[in-house]
Parts: sequence; C-alpha cells; structure tokens
Amino acid sequence: MADQTTKLPSFGPPGPVRQILRQREPLNSEFPFAELSQFITPSDQFYVRSHFPTPSVDLKSWRLSIEGAVRKPVSFSLDELKQLPAQTRMVTLECAGNARMYLMPKAAGVQWDLGAVSNAEWTGVILSELLDRAGVRAEAVEIILEGADEGTPDEPPKPPGKIRYARSIPLSKVPDVLLAYEMNGEPLPASHGAPLRAVVGGWFGMASVKWLSRIVAATQPFLGYFQTTDYAYWQDDAGQPVRVPITEMKTKAQIARPAPGEIIARNSHYRIVGAAWSGDSDLSKVEISTDAGAHFTEAKLLGPAVRHAWRLWEFDWQTPISPGPVTLFARARDAKGATQPMARDPKYGTYVIFHVLPMEVIVE
Amino acid sequence: MADQTTKLPSFGPPGPVRQILRQREPLNSEFPFAELSQFITPSDQFYVRSHFPTPSVDLKSWRLSIEGAVRKPVSFSLDELKQLPAQTRMVTLECAGNARMYLMPKAAGVQWDLGAVSNAEWTGVILSELLDRAGVRAEAVEIILEGADEGTPDEPPKPPGKIRYARSIPLSKVPDVLLAYEMNGEPLPASHGAPLRAVVGGWFGMASVKWLSRIVAATQPFLGYFQTTDYAYWQDDAGQPVRVPITEMKTKAQIARPAPGEIIARNSHYRIVGAAWSGDSDLSKVEISTDAGAHFTEAKLLGPAVRHAWRLWEFDWQTPISPGPVTLFARARDAKGATQPMARDPKYGTYVIFHVLPMEVIVE
Repeated sequence: MADQTTKLPSFGPPGPVRQILRQREPLNSEFPFAELSQFITPSDQFYVRSHFPTPSVDLKSWRLSIEGAVRKPVSFSLDELKQLPAQTRMVTLECAGNARMYLMPKAAGVQWDLGAVSNAEWTGVILSELLDRAGVRAEAVEIILEGADEGTPDEPPKPPGKIRYARSIPLSKVPDVLLAYEMNGEPLPASHGAPLRAVVGGWFGMASVKWLSRIVAATQPFLGYFQTTDYAYWQDDAGQPVRVPITEMKTKAQIARPAPGEIIARNSHYRIVGAAWSGDSDLSKVEISTDAGAHFTEAKLLGPAVRHAWRLWEFDWQTPISPGPVTLFARARDAKGATQPMARDPKYGTYVIFHVLPMEVIVE
Repeated sequence: MADQTTKLPSFGPPGPVRQILRQREPLNSEFPFAELSQFITPSDQFYVRSHFPTPSVDLKSWRLSIEGAVRKPVSFSLDELKQLPAQTRMVTLECAGNARMYLMPKAAGVQWDLGAVSNAEWTGVILSELLDRAGVRAEAVEIILEGADEGTPDEPPKPPGKIRYARSIPLSKVPDVLLAYEMNGEPLPASHGAPLRAVVGGWFGMASVKWLSRIVAATQPFLGYFQTTDYAYWQDDAGQPVRVPITEMKTKAQIARPAPGEIIARNSHYRIVGAAWSGDSDLSKVEISTDAGAHFTEAKLLGPAVRHAWRLWEFDWQTPISPGPVTLFARARDAKGATQPMARDPKYGTYVIFHVLPMEVIVE
C-alpha cells in the first residue's frame, strides 16, 4: 500500500497567488488581498496600475528635467540623482479605483477587487532636494509631475492626439513626495516606473507618477486630462458643482481573511485579519462587526504606527454555535474622528470607494 | 385684362425673415444674416441662445445677490438697480458656436449658420458699481455670474442632477461687464434674460449670463460645467494639454450679401456687404477677395468705430464678364495685425469658428 501511494502524482502544497491580471495592455494587475500576511508587500505582488503601455526608457540618454517657474532649469541623470542624499520611506499606495468591483450598478473601468492597494519601502531623493537646486520662483503654486508614458485617452472631453501621463501637487504637498529609484531594497521594476517614480504619501496612487521624466513648476493650478476629465469629480461649491481632482486617500479598513464566501467552523476561534490606512491623517482604530453592523468591537492594531503606511490588524472571533451566513464589517476611524461611512457617496463616480463593505461568510 | 389682373390674389412684397429657429426647447434661434441692413439688430431678430428652459422669474420676489469673498453681502431688487447710475453700451454678442454649420466633418451641437451674432444697445448698471457696494476682498480672483435657468447637461463628464447656468470672468474683465435690464431702449425680453442679464463686451456670448440672479466673488478660478466640460478646449501648455475656458471673440468678417449660392448679374456692379468685429482689440480693416483668395482688396468700413460693437462694411464689386461660379472671401484684420486664418484650427472643437469661409455665388 505504501509503495502504491508514493507512485501517485502529487503537487505538494500550493504556493501563494502572486498577482491577478485585470488588463494586459496597458498592464493592470492586483495583489490578491486574501494573501495579505506581511506589512511590506513583495514587489512582485505589489499592484500595478498603468494608463498607457510601459515606455522603454534608455538609461544612457534618460534625464529628469526640472523647468517652468524656476530660477535655474536643471536636469539630472540617474547616477547624478543617486549621488544626492537618499531617503527611505514606507508608503502605502491605493488606486483611486480600488474595490470598484463592489459598486452597484457596475461602474466602467478596470474591475479592481480589494487588491489595488499595497505597501512598500521606497528609496530615492526627496522632491524638495531637487526643487531647491532649481529654485522655485515665488509665483509658482503647483508642481506638475510628468511621466514618459504616453497614449490617447478614451473619456470625453479628450485631448487631441497623444498625451503623456501627468498629475500635479500643490507646493504644500512637496514634503511628502519621494522620487524613488528603489523599491523594497532593489532597483525599481519597469512596471513600477523605472528608472524613477514619484511616491506621494497620503494620496491615491494616481499622484505617484511612474517613469518620471519632467517636473514643471506651474503658476496656475494644472488642468490636464488626468486632473479634469479623469481622476476628478464634481464637488459642490456654494451651490455650483465644480470639477476638482481626486487627491487624498480616505480612512479605510479592509478584511483580508476570511475571504468573501469563506467557510468557517462553528463554535471556534477564527482570527479575522486585514489592513487599514488613512490619507494624511493618523489611523486611530479599527472596529469589527460580526453581526451585520449591530455591534462593533475594537480590533488589535499590530506593529508601530508609520505615517503614510497601512497598519495590519487582527480580531479574535468566537464563531457562532449555529451554522448559517454571517455578514462581517471592518470600519476604520482616524485620529480626528472621521469614520468610514456605511453608505457609498455617489459624488465620486467610479473612484474613492471607501464605504464599509459587507463581507458575507458561511459558518458550518 | 386690367380688371382680371386685380382679381388675382397677391401678397405684396415679402417682409423680412425675423428669426430662424434651430431648437424649440431650449429655445435657440438665429438672425438671418443675409437680412443684415442696420448697425443695431432689432430685438426680435437678435439671436437667442439658451441652454435650459427659460425660467419663470417672479419680479415681486426676484433679487440679485452678491456674495462670496466680499466684505458685505448685498442684494438688490430690480427697482433698486434702476435707481443706481445707468449706462448704455453698444455691444455685439456672438455665440461661440456661430457658423458651426460650416464645420467638416459635421460637428455635434446646434447647427448655427452665420446668424448667431447680433448687435444691440444695452442699458443697465455696470458690474463694478455693485461690486464696490459689496466690497470685493483682496483674495478674490474671479467673479462668477449665475443665472436662474437650470437643467441637466448632456456631455460627459456631467455633474449629478440639475445645475444652474454659470460662467466666470477674471477681475480684470469687470470693467467690460454691464448688467442690462433694457435692450434697444425697451425692457429686456424674457428670451434675452429678463429681468437682468450680463453683457460682457469682447467675449463670446456664453459669458453674458442671462436671467442673472447671483454674483459670487471667488478665490479660485471657477471650474464649473460650462468652464470645463462645455465651452472649454485643450490648450497646449509646455507640452501638456490643459483644459481652458473659451473667452474672447476672434477678429472676424462675415459676408451678408450676396447670400451663399446667390445668382448675380455678369458685368455689373454688385455691392458686397457684411459686418466685422474683434474681441477686445480694435478692428482695423476688412479685405475682400473675388478670385478665391488670389488677391485681396480693402472694403470700406461704414460709420464710426465703437469698441465691442461690430462694424458694417461694403465693397463695390465689378462682376466678371463671363458667367460661372465665383468664390468670395472676406477677411478681417485687427489693429495689432492679427488676421483671420484661412484654415480651421481644430483645437477649438465645435467652437470658435473664425477661419475665412469661402462663399460660392453664381454669375449669370
């Protein structure tokens, strides 16, 4: 018998799912959020969001230029950037469309599940270091970050012909911007923007421009395609809707395990785990409901708080004695008291999905 | 025979065409430009451009409010406005979509021929008079003009629900804005914005907000629907297209007679007539070509130059000896030397159609 068993084919235990592809060209893929087990997301699991095909960058000729409202336009090769003082920062990036799959009715766009969010350690030079060398003039109000990736966007009103991906930040946001050439201690991968990407702590990922090639100090708020048509929403301003760009991430908790529809043993201990984060404010607590929102109990936050990085959390759940479906909620709160809302705010269109998501599991 | 003739039915000579309807609801109708014969367009011929249904305004309760970044928010009844110093100004308004009918390929939107332009004498109170009473604060950069007309616009990205029509002007444009309650010496008609409309000299008509009900001093450039989605275009700014509102009218001449396709006697004198205008600059000359653009000869400008009003012009044409089709051009030039271009600039999309239009007539 023993001999026969060893002859049967076997795979061994399955390895983790690395990424889930959502779109091949341009490349969009997400972290399988149920695989969350560590604070730092391995680079090959970190979600990838692209708007245009990955540009081929020739390192021999590549330079980062800084121009516009500056006293002295300058440019840097990658080697020159690496000779400047380096910083390493832990920053969580979340795509503004993360969890779009849960919108009802179905929204247009990449159908992200919960995994368009990841956390990495980024190393590079801080933006202010470069701006100081160029000398930003007093009339500048914003910094435009432009990538080398280009293409023709779809949504009207659309610009004529090809454009390069670009987003802006106000001067007040500059201290939170790192220009990274390393990710998790290794050279930045091509899909994450090599040779250089912006990492804008606290803001949705669309601000962290990849394949960074040009920085422009602007004297007017930038009204590019990805600030007005895309990644923008209508905000009421004294009775008139005005078009404003999406910026800061919202306070939010997500459950990694159990996974949606997971079958759980009755009358036992189950460790609910997940991550939670907040934009520029500090996360203060995560609360769990195991009775469809009737009662909330505080989860345990793990590890130290790191500004602009997510926090893992866990919650010991004594599962019900009787079998049946159970709806779980995780709800985050920030230090200023802002709590995740229970209902969707439709003003954000297909973006900024941060209401508390019900997760149904099955107790058997 | 004479008796018999008098018994035949007769209409007498036809009266002028008053207006050509382009859309019933909201009301859009144009001046039949071939009827141009006088400097002032009669009010019942002046083109009508509406975005939403004509609002019903109750004069008993109507007030114009001035708010936002002002030291003292104020409001005025129509009687109170009429007690303030009045001004009368001659101002030509042209719809930003005038001549859209001539775009190839056909553009979406109201199919305006040449008559979405008219000139009237407007009487009212100047905007600066009212702003002085409210006291605009130093941090204000724009003035938002809001009408009482409201509805749901069509073009994406579109705001959620109903909005009121609104446009803004920078503070530097305030001196050119009259708030008119009279048109050509009579009370302002409902279709032209009664009880009060803005008249913004030099800018396309979309700035001259009708049914004016609210004025807001704003500390940021206004990014409303009619500044970003509609009445806006992509302008290149250092290699990035940015969305900017349409503002100033362009230097432009239009031929009224002959009309397109008009049959003209050979070897005779024909008086070509038309009008020409410029935005905030001064019209300097109008030139006519009767040989499809090979040669241009100056036309005669009639009457005195009035800032922000069109100018009538005429040109004595010795028609060809041989019959056949002839292409006419009229081309305007402003005092700064800007000349109407011969080709369409596609960046303006379905608006700002100011290239020289060929007009074919038939010599017999």
